[in-house]
Amino acid sequence: MAMPEVVTITDVALRDGLQNHPHTVPTDVKLDLLARLLAAGVTTLEAGSFVHPGLVPQMADADDIFSRLPTAPEASLMALVPNLRGAERALAAGVKSVRIVLSCSEGHSRANTNRSVSEGIAETRAVVEKLREAGDVRLTGALATVFVCPFDGIVPVEQVDRVVGALVDMGLNDISLSDTLGKADPAHVEKVVTAMQDRYPDITFGLHLHNTYGMGLANVLAGLRQGIAQFDAALGGIGGCPFAPGAAGNIATEDVVFMLQSMGIETGIDMVALSLAAADLQRALGTPLDSAVSRALGWAA
Amino acid sequence: MAMPEVVTITDVALRDGLQNHPHTVPTDVKLDLLARLLAAGVTTLEAGSFVHPGLVPQMADADDIFSRLPTAPEASLMALVPNLRGAERALAAGVKSVRIVLSCSEGHSRANTNRSVSEGIAETRAVVEKLREAGDVRLTGALATVFVCPFDGIVPVEQVDRVVGALVDMGLNDISLSDTLGKADPAHVEKVVTAMQDRYPDITFGLHLHNTYGMGLANVLAGLRQGIAQFDAALGGIGGCPFAPGAAGNIATEDVVFMLQSMGIETGIDMVALSLAAADLQRALGTPLDSAVSRALGWAA
Repeated sequence: MAMPEVVTITDVALRDGLQNHPHTVPTDVKLDLLARLLAAGVTTLEAGSFVHPGLVPQMADADDIFSRLPTAPEASLMALVPNLRGAERALAAGVKSVRIVLSCSEGHSRANTNRSVSEGIAETRAVVEKLREAGDVRLTGALATVFVCPFDGIVPVEQVDRVVGALVDMGLNDISLSDTLGKADPAHVEKVVTAMQDRYPDITFGLHLHNTYGMGLANVLAGLRQGIAQFDAALGGIGGCPFAPGAAGNIATEDVVFMLQSMGIETGIDMVALSLAAADLQRALGTPLDSAVSRALGWAA
Repeated sequence: MAMPEVVTITDVALRDGLQNHPHTVPTDVKLDLLARLLAAGVTTLEAGSFVHPGLVPQMADADDIFSRLPTAPEASLMALVPNLRGAERALAAGVKSVRIVLSCSEGHSRANTNRSVSEGIAETRAVVEKLREAGDVRLTGALATVFVCPFDGIVPVEQVDRVVGALVDMGLNDISLSDTLGKADPAHVEKVVTAMQDRYPDITFGLHLHNTYGMGLANVLAGLRQGIAQFDAALGGIGGCPFAPGAAGNIATEDVVFMLQSMGIETGIDMVALSLAAADLQRALGTPLDSAVSRALGWAA
């Protein structure tokens, strides 16, 4: 089984996880969780999102979060930026790593950002220019509804190609492909990943997977076999998109790390330290975590 | 992705699922569940186990179950038989399809059947002879602790080979390899399956997987890639072994079917009819089902 020997996990609990939670977690609690995740060896994180605070109040403290980030020179603490206003806020907060977000399907693009895919690409171009002018901001891409759209159904590879192509044109070379709904199966993942790798051999692709139908780790395996070495996951398996009806939580960081470690693949993440982060998260949410490992190892007790 | 086009799912909810449930489900309810599963297109089932009724009271009605089985000429309604006494009871109940059970590890063999692996092989030889004398009983094998033992840790491939070899010697050619604990990862599954297929090219191997650490469907994918076309699964993801501390439920039939159907692999099982069986099961157990599909599609409501 040809596999990457080292895999980077991007924890998205603080963004994708908390953005859909019924109540807003206080900023101090988020920063404590972030410190716990860093202490566990997680070096790449989504720490918040500069979406409209009226639409996603759970992320309204992004400015505050990024102004108060701990010093972690080895870590990439990413902010999600969906539009020009978000880019301005991110720069004002001193953000050094930005994930640009675009939907591949018209239905989700409209529901999520009230614009067409073409309009999204055009605004993203302006966002990238603005961030580039600011100098030292690292830019990566995150594509939603790469596989299935809650409104449009299965997304043709050509639509994914169009959006990937636009980001590559803008000079981005690290792009995460998201199964927003958790409805992609391993054959579908393989098909789209292969197509993108064939068309863009110089681009590093990652996968962002949800576990709605339990296929999350099977899709990780499908990705590993294609040489994918970057996966998003959320501590405790929390999350879901407020504008993607039917989506359930992200694949759980602890489940992915457990499987990768079992397979002898290095993640740099310590399970014991991760359990401390999980305990904090569970306390913050007031509900048991949604991951197999949290149940098996008693974290969810 | 080279894959089997058709896969057989053996539903083990009535045996592996219910044997570990805290209360005993009435025989009539079990037979109704069985009828529902057959109506959904499940053609291979474990309907009960002829274990000692004092040790596993949930299976004490096996004699009654098999005496009252519905006429289902296309279906294989299997009984688990762990020993000679069980074989006698199975024959008296008119069982036509028997799954022989053996552990690959000493610790589990002792805990599960109070005998060594060698003693298990010797008794199994007598069981097979007795069942063969009876004439028209179909015999298949089911091996426990093929990957990890709750007492002995990782099980060397040589130990698996020894037990598989013994069953092949006895003339069995259909053998299910069980990850009793749900602790095998996809690389481990691939390694053991490859070794067994290389050594026994004429034997049909199946996989029996648990989802303790969430790796169940990833392991199904690993098996599919090796050409495995027979998987055990339990409706509602119920189950666990009373003599395997730390094990959680089987992979859920509905989760496996959902993934396979998404991948274009035929199972012959209808999801809508399966949901009726799931509703009955949930009513019988009085607890929500433990599967991703039951949560995503609202069966577990």
